[in-house]
Amino acid sequence: MVEPLRVGLAGLGTVGSAVAAMLARSRPALAQRTGRPIDLVAYASKDPPRDPALDLSKVRQVASPKALAVDPGIDVFVELMGGAGDPAKGSVEAALGIGRPVVTANKALLAHHGVALAHLAEHNKAELRFEAAVAGGIPVIKALREGLGGSHIARIYGILNGTCNYILTRMQKEHLSFADCLKDAQRLGYAEADPTFDIGGFDTAHKLAILTSLAFGTEVDAEAVHVEGIEAISLADLEAAEELGYRIKLLGVAQRTDAGIEQRVHPTLVKQGSVIGEVDGVTNAVAIDADTMELTLLGPGAGGNATSASVVADLVDIAAGRHAPTFGRPAVALTKAVLAPMQRHEGGYYIRLAVVDRPGTAATIARRMADQTISLESIVQRRRDRRPHGGDDPRSVNNPAPVVLVTYATSEDAVRRALADIEHDGVLAEKPQVIRIEKS
Amino acid sequence: MVEPLRVGLAGLGTVGSAVAAMLARSRPALAQRTGRPIDLVAYASKDPPRDPALDLSKVRQVASPKALAVDPGIDVFVELMGGAGDPAKGSVEAALGIGRPVVTANKALLAHHGVALAHLAEHNKAELRFEAAVAGGIPVIKALREGLGGSHIARIYGILNGTCNYILTRMQKEHLSFADCLKDAQRLGYAEADPTFDIGGFDTAHKLAILTSLAFGTEVDAEAVHVEGIEAISLADLEAAEELGYRIKLLGVAQRTDAGIEQRVHPTLVKQGSVIGEVDGVTNAVAIDADTMELTLLGPGAGGNATSASVVADLVDIAAGRHAPTFGRPAVALTKAVLAPMQRHEGGYYIRLAVVDRPGTAATIARRMADQTISLESIVQRRRDRRPHGGDDPRSVNNPAPVVLVTYATSEDAVRRALADIEHDGVLAEKPQVIRIEKS
Repeated sequence: MVEPLRVGLAGLGTVGSAVAAMLARSRPALAQRTGRPIDLVAYASKDPPRDPALDLSKVRQVASPKALAVDPGIDVFVELMGGAGDPAKGSVEAALGIGRPVVTANKALLAHHGVALAHLAEHNKAELRFEAAVAGGIPVIKALREGLGGSHIARIYGILNGTCNYILTRMQKEHLSFADCLKDAQRLGYAEADPTFDIGGFDTAHKLAILTSLAFGTEVDAEAVHVEGIEAISLADLEAAEELGYRIKLLGVAQRTDAGIEQRVHPTLVKQGSVIGEVDGVTNAVAIDADTMELTLLGPGAGGNATSASVVADLVDIAAGRHAPTFGRPAVALTKAVLAPMQRHEGGYYIRLAVVDRPGTAATIARRMADQTISLESIVQRRRDRRPHGGDDPRSVNNPAPVVLVTYATSEDAVRRALADIEHDGVLAEKPQVIRIEKS
Repeated sequence: MVEPLRVGLAGLGTVGSAVAAMLARSRPALAQRTGRPIDLVAYASKDPPRDPALDLSKVRQVASPKALAVDPGIDVFVELMGGAGDPAKGSVEAALGIGRPVVTANKALLAHHGVALAHLAEHNKAELRFEAAVAGGIPVIKALREGLGGSHIARIYGILNGTCNYILTRMQKEHLSFADCLKDAQRLGYAEADPTFDIGGFDTAHKLAILTSLAFGTEVDAEAVHVEGIEAISLADLEAAEELGYRIKLLGVAQRTDAGIEQRVHPTLVKQGSVIGEVDGVTNAVAIDADTMELTLLGPGAGGNATSASVVADLVDIAAGRHAPTFGRPAVALTKAVLAPMQRHEGGYYIRLAVVDRPGTAATIARRMADQTISLESIVQRRRDRRPHGGDDPRSVNNPAPVVLVTYATSEDAVRRALADIEHDGVLAEKPQVIRIEKS
């Protein structure tokens, strides 16, 4: 029998505990698949395991992650602490520095230091794997890194944050406010006490930057992603979208354009009935548009079991001696990623205006759109069916009427100019809501 | 620079031509990913290339596939001729026999001789890869063979035949007959002149047998699959299913049961709004239910571009020196697959009866179901809204009324017994239609 692959694990939170449990539970099956057992032999953790049932009595505890990373008794270092800085960064660098393979689920680390780590891994002929860093259990990293080599990818996009999708799904289905759904998400453990990182789109941006690098050969760079969150999405938007045949999803999108690779994270309208449009709750989805095919992968984006399955899949590859470049090609071949100027973005737009309800308003709006050669797919103006303050005159500045526009493909620049003109015309009672439409 | 990987290609049909074109077109990108160029250096084909634009002037033609398989000038043999027998079988055996890696898209060959070939490959330390054999461009073989090692799979199921799904989709959406849709599929090249292999479910069975082996570690064995096709599905079934909130899909399903691994191919009712229920046209889908996650992969099931992308992905793995056991574990570890007795299948059932329209019929049917302790989710009996022959008495044996039953989970045995009793009661005007319901 070949020697076992000896694993050192840093971090015993939800995912770390699940990895330890899975390695113990699936030891015979994994040994059969790889030809050698995969054994957890050492760990480092500042806290006790998240899973109190975990038996670590036969596993050696090491004082610090960095000491574990270079411990002579392990063959592979698994980093599940998270965070772009130390101790994650220093310990991963230490392991790669001595040519030791690393498995991590740390998207922040990769989004900020991925290029440097890829160079370090390559220089030391060490494997750096991170299937669990994007879309939890979905094997999208492997699909991009090892497959699709003969295909030319035009766009990759997806629902990469379960928290946001849970909130948007509940708002849409139960007609609840953003604040109520966020509170529920926090209660159920789907959202952090400080939810900014998720709902602000930053988590999605980290994951998108990693996917973009693999799909397009750019240097992973979270700074090159245009980011908007879902905080400003109101129930009115979800209801209007529903009526128009759309859903609202927070998407990460990377797309080949004439100006380079556009990377953006923002709420989007996607068609009801499309696969992406029907992904509900905490499920994640990644769609790849290539010249050869359209491929969509759906699965759980988080959770100990799903994420640990991806960590273990990376360990299986290492145990079996399967190697691949960190971002699918040599680090030196990666090209610079640049922040795409969103004013040059082209696509359809959903625009919700609150207008002062007086004759000619719709005509004013339509004319300003036409001035910018924006074609409208639809314009819907409604009388309010409820008077929030009882006896108000419905046709007054204090009681604005909603107008919802859907444009055909145009440029963001044109939309912004048209809206500035409309604002200048004095017909708006509130700041316009603008949501991009994404083909799906 | 490392030596190129020299490819010998047998078969220049749609997929073979597309592979040759992709290798030429993507040469620099592939070399960057694998560290070495992948070059088509020789081919064997009894016909000229399907793609007349293909330039093979610099590629050496070899007299026969078998001669090509052992040609000293190639490093890997690509078999794209198809068919379970020779020349595919003999040439693949010849290549593996001298320790040469093989890439094939040949599901029939694998379904019938997969175990023997896996032993042969292993004995000679040769790689045998077949990503293109199942679900065209969807990287499901890789996901099962290299990922999910720590997961316990309970069920794998999917839409694996584009022809059937195209026909069922058009029947449902356009209210056309099976015969009309089949004719259109043949005209568009989605179905063969003799469509039996597709619509009879045999193509799906071959693919399912391969997936089952990878998911459950059974010996691939097409004979262990219970197979029913879609020939008996009528427009009446599609319309009734639609009304009940279901779609009808031809699924391949492999499932862990107390009696072993059940492998079956048959029309099923799946819920509208589920991912599988909404897969339309020639698209394929594979869903994996594991203890760790539910994963769904969607993409094109056929076509030169998509299928060739999978063939090239296998070549990339070989060029990069990545190895994996043929069916995910050593051939000797594969367990025997046995044909599951369908009478022991458990699940919900859709039953459409044409009954003689006289008082008490519904009561008779309900009682016979109750006798077998079958619980009904719904029973719908309708007066015919049209009289096909003008002045017939609607309440006569010659003008039967449709009754549609949906049962809760029960056993197939119980359903068959209840239907035999109902037939014996003399209330049926036609043979009952029975379609299994699958959770999705």
